[in-house]
Amino acid sequence: MKLTILGCHSATPHENKNPTAQLLDIKGHRFLIDCGEGTQVQLRKAKVSFVHIKHIFISHLHGDHFYGLPGLVSSFRLLGREAPLHIYGPKGIKEALTLLLKLANSWTNYPLHFHELESDVSECVFEDDSVTVHTIPLKHRVYTNGFLFAEKQGLRRINTTATTEIGVDKSQFRLLQLGQDVVVDGKMVQNRELTFSPHPAKKYAYCSDTAYHPEIVSIIKGADWLYHEATFLQQHEQLAQQTQHSTAKEAATIARNAQVGRLILGHYSSRYKDLSLFAAEAAEIFPHVILASDGAVIS
Amino acid sequence: MKLTILGCHSATPHENKNPTAQLLDIKGHRFLIDCGEGTQVQLRKAKVSFVHIKHIFISHLHGDHFYGLPGLVSSFRLLGREAPLHIYGPKGIKEALTLLLKLANSWTNYPLHFHELESDVSECVFEDDSVTVHTIPLKHRVYTNGFLFAEKQGLRRINTTATTEIGVDKSQFRLLQLGQDVVVDGKMVQNRELTFSPHPAKKYAYCSDTAYHPEIVSIIKGADWLYHEATFLQQHEQLAQQTQHSTAKEAATIARNAQVGRLILGHYSSRYKDLSLFAAEAAEIFPHVILASDGAVIS
Repeated sequence: MKLTILGCHSATPHENKNPTAQLLDIKGHRFLIDCGEGTQVQLRKAKVSFVHIKHIFISHLHGDHFYGLPGLVSSFRLLGREAPLHIYGPKGIKEALTLLLKLANSWTNYPLHFHELESDVSECVFEDDSVTVHTIPLKHRVYTNGFLFAEKQGLRRINTTATTEIGVDKSQFRLLQLGQDVVVDGKMVQNRELTFSPHPAKKYAYCSDTAYHPEIVSIIKGADWLYHEATFLQQHEQLAQQTQHSTAKEAATIARNAQVGRLILGHYSSRYKDLSLFAAEAAEIFPHVILASDGAVIS
Repeated sequence: MKLTILGCHSATPHENKNPTAQLLDIKGHRFLIDCGEGTQVQLRKAKVSFVHIKHIFISHLHGDHFYGLPGLVSSFRLLGREAPLHIYGPKGIKEALTLLLKLANSWTNYPLHFHELESDVSECVFEDDSVTVHTIPLKHRVYTNGFLFAEKQGLRRINTTATTEIGVDKSQFRLLQLGQDVVVDGKMVQNRELTFSPHPAKKYAYCSDTAYHPEIVSIIKGADWLYHEATFLQQHEQLAQQTQHSTAKEAATIARNAQVGRLILGHYSSRYKDLSLFAAEAAEIFPHVILASDGAVIS
């Protein structure tokens, strides 16, 4: 699992401050999460091939999370894309993109599938053999979801030293991977003598934008990584409440209560020059804090 | 008159290639012309104060000329703008921006005025004491206008050496500026002895995107500067015709026939690595060629 921070600043784009976008590599997928203005350029800088992006998850329809999407969808067409593209986002996203494409008198030459969201409870929006994606209903000024990306538990791993020693035929490996015991030379051998545990299944929870919202704790419990917005420091708690954003302390409280592995902070207001204050404030509540920065790769 | 090229490349944004946007300083106005994705950042780089932009002219609704506008309009709001903003562009631009603002559950806290265009003949879309702006109907895959920015003829300029010598009272200066003769000590003095000609009124013609379209020559005749798109070189003439773009040679032909002062080329296709070929091709037809580049200032 690898996370590339394409942009992690709130609101207006600056020369060195990009609005929100992330790319999650998980089990062969490259999921784009949010798409602020300039995401195309950030993807170029990160040397990400556009063709590998097949699923885009949009948290909400504020510009700093969404206004890079029309351009990206258009660029895919100009670059001759043929692979289908799936876009998950709040109801209305289809109308917006459809109108923009209509006004440009162009349509995509690849299949474009919209998955519009309007539920207020967590739901599964993507599933295949190796990964699930669930929404995390958040609390913001407009309808907003975070997303929980979860690997499925893998198969048990063959201990090839042991299987060679005991002389297990390869035809039995599938049974071993599924956790079953096997018979070798008329003798039952226990699975645990021939296999290792599966690699642990990883979980990444993305929560932006949101006010402090303890209801998400049960959904994101035990995630390896939690990205939680921290637009403000606690000294501007009132402003956070008014604008339905979080402080670093609130993000850390969610991380602690959800017992996550690492907390990644971002979506900083441009009023703060010294971002280390965010890490310091959060670390008083929860020790494992990473400050997101544009272009950073977390793995 | 000063022109800042914020972006001059066609189609998809790259790290060092911005889609179309320009800023024209003329008679105290700062007119923004087109607004491709990333224009906000380009304006920051050019150190342009957002508050001085009061009129935005959009040629057509293709993404590379337009997808930076929703973000800019939103940023104006976030930055506390109060001054009215006027947007001139093809019919549909109001619906698009209104929908995006509605989906974000936000509206501007400053007056936003749309001037939707749908005429196929040149019309005056802006006029004040010092400047007029007329549309230049172009020929492209969607409804498109260029814009002709023209200074009004200024007043005659007082020759203060002559007026002091002859002893003209300052109360007569207004008459002199208006071109009238004056009476000094009972004796008629001719205007031309006391004044200089007005500064020449400048004209800037912006033409992008368009196929070769000789019908524009009569509208832009004698412009000091002509920006004309040259997406292709003549070797790709067929591609230019198919996509309704121009070649460098065609742009130069327009410049020559319209007897403009300078031809500024831009909107280069990303297939060309050596842009000097555009200048060379155009110079065979018309000698005074400038190659636009992102960040360049022409004055």
